[in-house]
Amino acid sequence: MMKDLPLSKVYQLLEPGPVVLLTTSRKGRANVMTMSWHMMVEFEPPLVACVVSKANHSFAALRATGECIIAIPALELAPKVVGVGNCSGRDLDKFAAFGLTPMPAKRVAPPLVAECFANLECKVADTRLVNRYNLFILEVLKAWRDPAQKNPKTVHHHGYGTFVADGETIKLKSKMR
Amino acid sequence: MMKDLPLSKVYQLLEPGPVVLLTTSRKGRANVMTMSWHMMVEFEPPLVACVVSKANHSFAALRATGECIIAIPALELAPKVVGVGNCSGRDLDKFAAFGLTPMPAKRVAPPLVAECFANLECKVADTRLVNRYNLFILEVLKAWRDPAQKNPKTVHHHGYGTFVADGETIKLKSKMR
Repeated sequence: MMKDLPLSKVYQLLEPGPVVLLTTSRKGRANVMTMSWHMMVEFEPPLVACVVSKANHSFAALRATGECIIAIPALELAPKVVGVGNCSGRDLDKFAAFGLTPMPAKRVAPPLVAECFANLECKVADTRLVNRYNLFILEVLKAWRDPAQKNPKTVHHHGYGTFVADGETIKLKSKMR
Repeated sequence: MMKDLPLSKVYQLLEPGPVVLLTTSRKGRANVMTMSWHMMVEFEPPLVACVVSKANHSFAALRATGECIIAIPALELAPKVVGVGNCSGRDLDKFAAFGLTPMPAKRVAPPLVAECFANLECKVADTRLVNRYNLFILEVLKAWRDPAQKNPKTVHHHGYGTFVADGETIKLKSKMR
């Protein structure tokens, strides 16, 4: 069960740099890829930059449709997330292959990933750096969070199959939003 | 003591989304800010995108000089890193105020931060998205790593003074670089 998440809180999910899934949909066929090159660009409405390589099957769908979902997996999903990153949607229905459940989104055509603790419905807002860097600016239109997944640990990619999971939480008096 | 780090390994430092310091230098005066909005854009030569708000004192220096250092602090520095983020170089010499040691860089004017376990010397490579999004594309010209800091834990910002430190490392068979 996904519940609404206020758009003002989206940056708290992406700013820490988790490995995420990105779903697209084209000609009635959904696909999912693994991504670590993303960052926040604006708080609200939330803007997110990401790099989707032309070598990824998802590139053409994202470019053509201008829509995607960023889905954030917790540690338990890491083996599936890596599996998704190791193959191409060119040859495979990755949702079926990895037992991930596509769920209808509200504002865009690509599906949410039911197993992820958060899902962000996005549309492409700026393509000026796509040709040169494969860099898309996305606007998050709607955000979802699964309240049943409490204190999810995210994973962070350090290259070549090495990942670090979230550890200790610390609080420091900060004026930084 | 900082040692050379091959440029091909830079993405392994930034891709996991650590809170970093960014130093600039203008008219002989160095400054340092705290930053979490950055991502990798290309492996080698390493390109990095980052957002430096016009509200930050560092913005004008970065824009005018086209040079900065991205310095990566370990967990032990977190209180200083948050302190740096809570004040402005407009009013303060933050290196002195927080006991951070500026060290000469090799390819750019802004200083390395001696206490950080890695330092990346950067020049601005693309400014097309600066006016609209405060988004700079940087090229990493030279990278340094302090071998005395072994297995440093980085910190990740979740908003409003909540940070998560690196936890468990996991290895999964990945074809992802």
